[in-house]
Amino acid sequence: MARLVLKFGGTSVANLDRIRRSALHVKREVDAGHDVTVVVSAMSGKTNELVGWCGEAASLHDVREYDAVVASGELVTAGLMAIVLQSLGIPARSWQGWQVPILTNDAHGSARIQSIDPTAIIEGFAAGEVAVVAGFQGLHQESGRITTLGRGGSDTSAVALAGAMKADRCDIYTDVDGVYTTDPRIVPKARRLDRVSFEEMLEMASLGAKVLQVRSVEIAMNYNVKTFVRSSFEDPANPSAGTLICAEEDIMEQQVVTGIAFSKDEAQLTLRRVADKPGIAASIFVPLAEANINVDMIIQVVSDDTTTTDLTFTVPTADYERARVILEKSRESIGYSVLQGNTDVVKISAIGIGMRSHAGVAARAFKALAEKGINIRAITTSEIKFSLLIDAAYTELAVRTLHSLFGLDRAA
Amino acid sequence: MARLVLKFGGTSVANLDRIRRSALHVKREVDAGHDVTVVVSAMSGKTNELVGWCGEAASLHDVREYDAVVASGELVTAGLMAIVLQSLGIPARSWQGWQVPILTNDAHGSARIQSIDPTAIIEGFAAGEVAVVAGFQGLHQESGRITTLGRGGSDTSAVALAGAMKADRCDIYTDVDGVYTTDPRIVPKARRLDRVSFEEMLEMASLGAKVLQVRSVEIAMNYNVKTFVRSSFEDPANPSAGTLICAEEDIMEQQVVTGIAFSKDEAQLTLRRVADKPGIAASIFVPLAEANINVDMIIQVVSDDTTTTDLTFTVPTADYERARVILEKSRESIGYSVLQGNTDVVKISAIGIGMRSHAGVAARAFKALAEKGINIRAITTSEIKFSLLIDAAYTELAVRTLHSLFGLDRAA
Repeated sequence: MARLVLKFGGTSVANLDRIRRSALHVKREVDAGHDVTVVVSAMSGKTNELVGWCGEAASLHDVREYDAVVASGELVTAGLMAIVLQSLGIPARSWQGWQVPILTNDAHGSARIQSIDPTAIIEGFAAGEVAVVAGFQGLHQESGRITTLGRGGSDTSAVALAGAMKADRCDIYTDVDGVYTTDPRIVPKARRLDRVSFEEMLEMASLGAKVLQVRSVEIAMNYNVKTFVRSSFEDPANPSAGTLICAEEDIMEQQVVTGIAFSKDEAQLTLRRVADKPGIAASIFVPLAEANINVDMIIQVVSDDTTTTDLTFTVPTADYERARVILEKSRESIGYSVLQGNTDVVKISAIGIGMRSHAGVAARAFKALAEKGINIRAITTSEIKFSLLIDAAYTELAVRTLHSLFGLDRAA
Repeated sequence: MARLVLKFGGTSVANLDRIRRSALHVKREVDAGHDVTVVVSAMSGKTNELVGWCGEAASLHDVREYDAVVASGELVTAGLMAIVLQSLGIPARSWQGWQVPILTNDAHGSARIQSIDPTAIIEGFAAGEVAVVAGFQGLHQESGRITTLGRGGSDTSAVALAGAMKADRCDIYTDVDGVYTTDPRIVPKARRLDRVSFEEMLEMASLGAKVLQVRSVEIAMNYNVKTFVRSSFEDPANPSAGTLICAEEDIMEQQVVTGIAFSKDEAQLTLRRVADKPGIAASIFVPLAEANINVDMIIQVVSDDTTTTDLTFTVPTADYERARVILEKSRESIGYSVLQGNTDVVKISAIGIGMRSHAGVAARAFKALAEKGINIRAITTSEIKFSLLIDAAYTELAVRTLHSLFGLDRAA
């Protein structure tokens, strides 16, 4: 008998039919004798509707009220899931975030979980009761107000609950049957991975793979929560295991590259002929940081005359215009001649813990892309991944090229 | 400077445009220097949608989960109203029922308010803050679970809050501009009343007028809350006062009859030739009471042979079939010859505190209806009202006849 947390995302609770199908997955685990906690998202589309209403109410709005509004979607699905489970003969009750309680800090809109007391839920297990917890939300105890955990926050609710109650497993049910080597819509030969390490998953999630919220992976890693990504759309009587996110040492055979991620949410800015003197980087990046703009890739190239340099970096597309305005304003204090920008770029990343022990992986990628005539605008690397900025038009060609190069293609 | 509670019903918060218009009514009172608490319903249609989903989830469902689901609609409008008020420059914050807290008993689905602690809301007044409270809901403290107050429960939330904080006035904003002598759709000559006594309003609400939840009137009466029914659809800069629900002694000139209500939610059952012996009434009505069926009007007529009697009574239309089944089953124990039923009936009531001091009011009505050829199937009277059961086909004729008879018609 194990203790399980099962999380169902928006498409898995989109309507009563889908809730019923998801409930059959819960029933299978209950029938197997496990103690089950269910975490649910809002019905797909609901959170967007609520967010839209907040925007309609006022373009700049109190994020505490935003949280009170948008957290309501999960309350609906938690109650409905409890009712459906009861109709299947399974004792169940819903838990709103503040009832558990799931306590967070007061960073409304993207709050961080500080503590979870699973005592009451665990007491319910003794009576054979399934707990259905509304995801995405918590309580800031000092103010007594509702908080939300940011987009995809129900993943974090699930993994954090699993950690708090020392669950044997956390299953993240979604509309795909696991984590793929890359987006199958781009690369038909993409393969489902049986296992991915926490570190790799963290990079994939950060670099554009949307299957899990980044913070949920961090928590899974910190608490060593065995997490599966699997599909609620499969036959509940005969499900596949999906992809296990686990510690590195639990992965026997390590690929050099495990997956290729890509993100169109990058915009490039280039400052031409910046005076090459100490403190110049600060004069550029401090104002951006103060405006809460994350700078990602940075490359610096000495220009023809050796007294100036060209500086290229990327920012999230949403912050591109703001970043331009800030840089225009600081033109004199920075001292550059031309500001160039490009939003039509994509960041392609290859991730694999095997890179630690294999040199020259990135170099192989550069060569392969060059052979296809793809120009690399910027490069960043870390211990287990490298990222390349290229023109968006080459996205598919580049992803497929790297996918083949690193042996990820499914056997025909 | 006064302390006010303003309640906005579903049609007054149906969308962002309507919320904005309602917010302007709030702003008018804030600008006048008043301390304001706002109570909101769910957007019109939302509660029905949530109730529908619960029914779709399981026809028989846990009413505690039903409450958790259906209470979510008001959370949305409370947050949105707070955001809109802030956008008008008014400090505001939303309060969920459990945050206030509004404590109730555990009669989920139609819980009764047991206590309200308005301390935190009143503290907000000092900072010029408007409290926006989600109506219709409360918290059962022992179980820590959400309760709802039944259909129209936001009226009750508003009046109870007004009582708890000793508000000077409670304004119930709706889509009509007050309480009418009868339904203007049936009687075009219906008049808006300037004042109605609590007792009359209680009877009107119980007898079919849908403008206020019955319990809200009981609470208004018990705590002597000066309650106005008025329209949110009018120009916020130039609103009319609506109808004041107040103590009897605040009404100078008392009409004999104040209003005519009617309800099609009645079904008639007649037992023919019931043995006229002691205990017979119990053998009929105890099984119905045990099945939670409310019996309303009862008349007993001695039949031709003096050893038996005919018994006619009414039950809510929704309970008609269940009542028939129970009576069929107890045929032998009761001992009757024929069971007859009729759902095509209507109960028409005339209400007025003036009846206390005027004899023969009902008799005048019987005569006027007889002259129109309308057959009266049953009669009940109380101190300030009488009710007549007639064939539904005569509804409009009967209501108009009584409306004219008692001098309620608007001057042309």
